[in-house]
Amino acid sequence: MNIEQKIKKAIRDVADFPKEGVVFKDITPLLSDPVLSNDIAEALMERIKPLNLDAIVAIESRGFLYGFLLANKLNIPFIPVRKKGKLPGDTLEYTYDLEYGSATVEIHTKDIEPGWNVLIHDDLLATGGTAQAAAELLKMQGAHVAGFAFVVELTFLNGVKKIKPYCDNIVSLATY
Amino acid sequence: MNIEQKIKKAIRDVADFPKEGVVFKDITPLLSDPVLSNDIAEALMERIKPLNLDAIVAIESRGFLYGFLLANKLNIPFIPVRKKGKLPGDTLEYTYDLEYGSATVEIHTKDIEPGWNVLIHDDLLATGGTAQAAAELLKMQGAHVAGFAFVVELTFLNGVKKIKPYCDNIVSLATY
Repeated sequence: MNIEQKIKKAIRDVADFPKEGVVFKDITPLLSDPVLSNDIAEALMERIKPLNLDAIVAIESRGFLYGFLLANKLNIPFIPVRKKGKLPGDTLEYTYDLEYGSATVEIHTKDIEPGWNVLIHDDLLATGGTAQAAAELLKMQGAHVAGFAFVVELTFLNGVKKIKPYCDNIVSLATY
Repeated sequence: MNIEQKIKKAIRDVADFPKEGVVFKDITPLLSDPVLSNDIAEALMERIKPLNLDAIVAIESRGFLYGFLLANKLNIPFIPVRKKGKLPGDTLEYTYDLEYGSATVEIHTKDIEPGWNVLIHDDLLATGGTAQAAAELLKMQGAHVAGFAFVVELTFLNGVKKIKPYCDNIVSLATY
């Protein structure tokens, strides 16, 4: 099996979560399989290594998992994007629309240097709102979005359309 | 410098966060220093290796960082404890008191097998409420709390008192 087949075999579909009519892709079985999790990290590594990254930005909370692991394997800084009010230092913030209402995410100023090549990581690309917000936070600081990396992509939500204007290096190991 | 000195040198004190009068220990400078982050992971590894762990349980969200990295290095399952409503499958939950009000955390059933030796990890031990909740969730499933591992411990909040009844293998790399 290739990595996509392994991921799809492990992912669990949960009906009607977080609300009726939605089939949720539960990635926790990937986490409890250490061999698969390492295969995922290595597959992402292979795809992002050519980008000559200076840092990885990952989105709270599930993006912290493979994001920090990749930063460790590449020996580069890890910078968290968090929900508003969680980061204690001076921050930049970006607000984006959700289906109902909006959400605001933040990044610490001073963590990123202008001109850096930065990868944006999350476990799953859905509508792309949060990944786009992360890209905007990088732009505000003069950093370069060198790529996006996801374990899973829900192509029917068309998140790629939202993030492609920032960078068309978009890696998704398993697509639905 | 030993690991504790390195951590203390990197941690940033933020006054009046999240509320007036509190000095917050900001661990994000550890994350943006990949050499230090790897030293931290290796120092934790050295201390937890003798425990013959079957899995690592870590607490959302900052516990996901070193927790998943350690699980990767040890090649064992990673199991998340999350705030109520985030885990899509069948869960067990535990509610604990906070200074004002209460909080509820959950764990997936079936992730843990009875009799497993499990490490509980979070980035920081404060009052111990969440770590104790994680220990209760393990007990409910017949697992053995083999140890607790933290990067930072705020000893003046006496969290050790709350978690020691579950296991006295408590590792904290830097204490205040």
